[in-house]
Amino acid sequence: MHEDIQKALQIIRKALEEKQVLRHACCVLEFDSQTICPERGMLEQGNTSAFLSNKAFQISHSKEFISSLELLYEHRKILSRDTRILVERLYWDYLRTKNITPEMDKEFSLVFNKAFVDWLDAKEEADFLLFEDSLAAVQEVNLKQIALAENAKRVPYDNLLDVYERGMTTRDLNRCFDECKERLVPMLKRILQSPKEIRTDFLSRPAPKESQREMTEYLLELLGFNFERGTWTTSEHPFTECLAKDDVRVTTHFHENMFYSNMFSIIHECGHALFEQNQPVEDFFYHISSYKTLGQHESVARFYENLIGRSEAFIRLVYPKCRELFPKVFDGVSEKQFYEAMNLVQPSLIRTEADEFTYTFHIIIRYEIEQMLVNKSVQIKDLPQIWNEKYEEYLGICPLNDREGILQDVHWTDGFGYFPTYALGNMYGAMYYNKMRESLDVDALVSSGDFVQINNWMRDHVWKSANRRDAKTWILKITGRAFTPKDFLDYLENKYSKIYGI
Amino acid sequence: MHEDIQKALQIIRKALEEKQVLRHACCVLEFDSQTICPERGMLEQGNTSAFLSNKAFQISHSKEFISSLELLYEHRKILSRDTRILVERLYWDYLRTKNITPEMDKEFSLVFNKAFVDWLDAKEEADFLLFEDSLAAVQEVNLKQIALAENAKRVPYDNLLDVYERGMTTRDLNRCFDECKERLVPMLKRILQSPKEIRTDFLSRPAPKESQREMTEYLLELLGFNFERGTWTTSEHPFTECLAKDDVRVTTHFHENMFYSNMFSIIHECGHALFEQNQPVEDFFYHISSYKTLGQHESVARFYENLIGRSEAFIRLVYPKCRELFPKVFDGVSEKQFYEAMNLVQPSLIRTEADEFTYTFHIIIRYEIEQMLVNKSVQIKDLPQIWNEKYEEYLGICPLNDREGILQDVHWTDGFGYFPTYALGNMYGAMYYNKMRESLDVDALVSSGDFVQINNWMRDHVWKSANRRDAKTWILKITGRAFTPKDFLDYLENKYSKIYGI
Repeated sequence: MHEDIQKALQIIRKALEEKQVLRHACCVLEFDSQTICPERGMLEQGNTSAFLSNKAFQISHSKEFISSLELLYEHRKILSRDTRILVERLYWDYLRTKNITPEMDKEFSLVFNKAFVDWLDAKEEADFLLFEDSLAAVQEVNLKQIALAENAKRVPYDNLLDVYERGMTTRDLNRCFDECKERLVPMLKRILQSPKEIRTDFLSRPAPKESQREMTEYLLELLGFNFERGTWTTSEHPFTECLAKDDVRVTTHFHENMFYSNMFSIIHECGHALFEQNQPVEDFFYHISSYKTLGQHESVARFYENLIGRSEAFIRLVYPKCRELFPKVFDGVSEKQFYEAMNLVQPSLIRTEADEFTYTFHIIIRYEIEQMLVNKSVQIKDLPQIWNEKYEEYLGICPLNDREGILQDVHWTDGFGYFPTYALGNMYGAMYYNKMRESLDVDALVSSGDFVQINNWMRDHVWKSANRRDAKTWILKITGRAFTPKDFLDYLENKYSKIYGI
Repeated sequence: MHEDIQKALQIIRKALEEKQVLRHACCVLEFDSQTICPERGMLEQGNTSAFLSNKAFQISHSKEFISSLELLYEHRKILSRDTRILVERLYWDYLRTKNITPEMDKEFSLVFNKAFVDWLDAKEEADFLLFEDSLAAVQEVNLKQIALAENAKRVPYDNLLDVYERGMTTRDLNRCFDECKERLVPMLKRILQSPKEIRTDFLSRPAPKESQREMTEYLLELLGFNFERGTWTTSEHPFTECLAKDDVRVTTHFHENMFYSNMFSIIHECGHALFEQNQPVEDFFYHISSYKTLGQHESVARFYENLIGRSEAFIRLVYPKCRELFPKVFDGVSEKQFYEAMNLVQPSLIRTEADEFTYTFHIIIRYEIEQMLVNKSVQIKDLPQIWNEKYEEYLGICPLNDREGILQDVHWTDGFGYFPTYALGNMYGAMYYNKMRESLDVDALVSSGDFVQINNWMRDHVWKSANRRDAKTWILKITGRAFTPKDFLDYLENKYSKIYGI
């Protein structure tokens, strides 16, 4: 028996190594597509990616692979910890998809592809009608996937959450978002009624691209990005990609009349990158390097972007560099004015442009609608109205059309369950930020530009175990406390009371 | 029988399609490595490329592929022209390599890889001794490859030429280079003795990168580069890569104190790119799109770089733009001074920096040494001295060390036979340049910035048939005349007599 297990392990390991090579090639193709590939070269590049992905798919769906996996799962208790984690994850994914035939899989892909195309059209035309049928089809596919899963949980939405945020449940989220609403709604009202005026006129002053380039390098270096094992470039939408163990890339964009957009994009992406660049090496060896949840990843990016990046300490640190690189923008602008402008609270329609405070409302709205969709308790045609009413209710504003309303995000072309991870990221981050401050004087370190201790703390507490634990266990182990939005809500209350004098 | 042939064709076509996809992925990886991949990411990227290349290798070495190819070759006379060309080329390559076992192939690769590493070391240390053993090993591999080829030609060097410049022979080259030496040696003496002084002080004046970026876009647009089906970026050494039918990329570099280096690099690479972007579409369909010889390709790049780019007409055209983008460089510099500086003749040690006139000597020197190596008529340890003596003889200068002497080029880490194609490119180009001028007023078109007719002529005469013909047949069909260096030598004589008043 022991020999069988050895052999099964070899088979799995070899298959995963091949998959890793194919995945690496796909990542390079993907990165290339999003940064430099010429318009008409995209199609063939997409075909090449699809070909390689399909090869990777075949590897983990071979009979040999599956029987080895079944054997290992059966004997998982005698495996080393990391191997057991790998086997459990692979087996979970196998159970989730084993009843999906290749034909079904193809059919599902077609639905998602069509939804994407229809969504593009609908958004362009600002007309939800053009997306309605596709959204219904996506809903059907998501429900079918749940029904087919051999390891399905009782609450349908939990199965979607499990894909993006392992272990998190609808119950957790309901409780969390109720608490958010309870505290954030009155707080927002007070902020909006405050007489405080924040100066914003300088934000749109032109900042040359060459200087923004320099700012990007400065920030990456400052935060501890490893340039030997990573690189950066520009793309339409900023993103981070871990192509390989020693190759993590971030992108940013330069808007001449929004110098801060590049700054906070690159800080955010650098957070994602630091997470990947400080992976335990053995996670690559055990093929468990991609088992982080989206919320874990987002928490790190937002930790650097908001908890660090929008703090008084950080603004104090970078203010002189900003003045040096953008002398025209900062002409007559004080450090305090810069800090306040970077923390302006203003209800807005577009999630990706929302401030730190109102952001959670955007997620709650989407989450509540996703619940209706997965529970089939809503007619699709009514969604735009529901969307608009919720924006009115939570943020006091109403979209003029579907483009700036329900059609703004691409995510639903691919299914439901993704959005909550964005909000969870903020909450995890606030929890470990408080924990970190028990042993580090974070403000003093940040304002002196010393990120070594902060990054080391993150590595030892936040990054090291992320692949090995579901998000709730992970945050409990880091902080000694069960998951709660309280830290995040307290943080908002303290910070914005001070800024708005309320 | 007919059915068998259909089936064999299907097998070959499907295999080549798969190879094409794998090649596409490898090209993207290669391009990425040379432009953006971080230092420590290179190794894994190299492994991924090797994995995919190996998959591609396996495809065309399967029993099924080979037996189909043999059947098709046997019946090649009944195939359509393009299919027959494909089958003949595949069969030629099959015969050349069929006696090389996978073990040998691996062993050869190791020799080349080691040679590359040793060459890097040796160049760094400027010490040929460190490269001697590896060069001897490369020589052995090249001779073994020739001995194993089932379609070997009698003259050993001809077999190497066939890989890079199909159909060209040692006899052709000897005759050609003798003619060059006969005319160029006395011509160079006259140029160097002429009292003409060419102004060069302004060449090293600083030119901002942002302006060089703009110049790059201007030149690519001017020459007709298709930005929908191609793109550009920077890399250490400029190059062109045809990644896919609709994706041809060029690179350049920006040296702040050599504004012209970017200009002529990008014109050169744009020539390569125009060749690829104007491929007949059916060549991709028939999988014969990569059968151009290196000399054909180089001829086009040099046609744009030298025959066009360094002409009085082109300098007239771009002079105002140069003054606009580089006002400090061109302060007090006349159009004539610019033209003369771009055509300065000056014997130098480094091939890649040589002027149009002395370039051929660099190739002749390498060619003569390659002949000795392939004929085993020299002791490897004597090569640096032979190299230096030849530089003294042809150019009147002598390298101070091996780094600027025999170690300057990477090519010999990979075998012999490549260098002559550089010289041949100049000669083909001069031949079709003369032919073109029979029907087009090239100078008038160039100085008015109208490249449409020139590019159309190139497409119809030069580009369209390149994949289908060996270089000698190709140039004969274009010009109606057998290959000769005469046009190139006449061109040099006319141009430089005028510049140097001799």
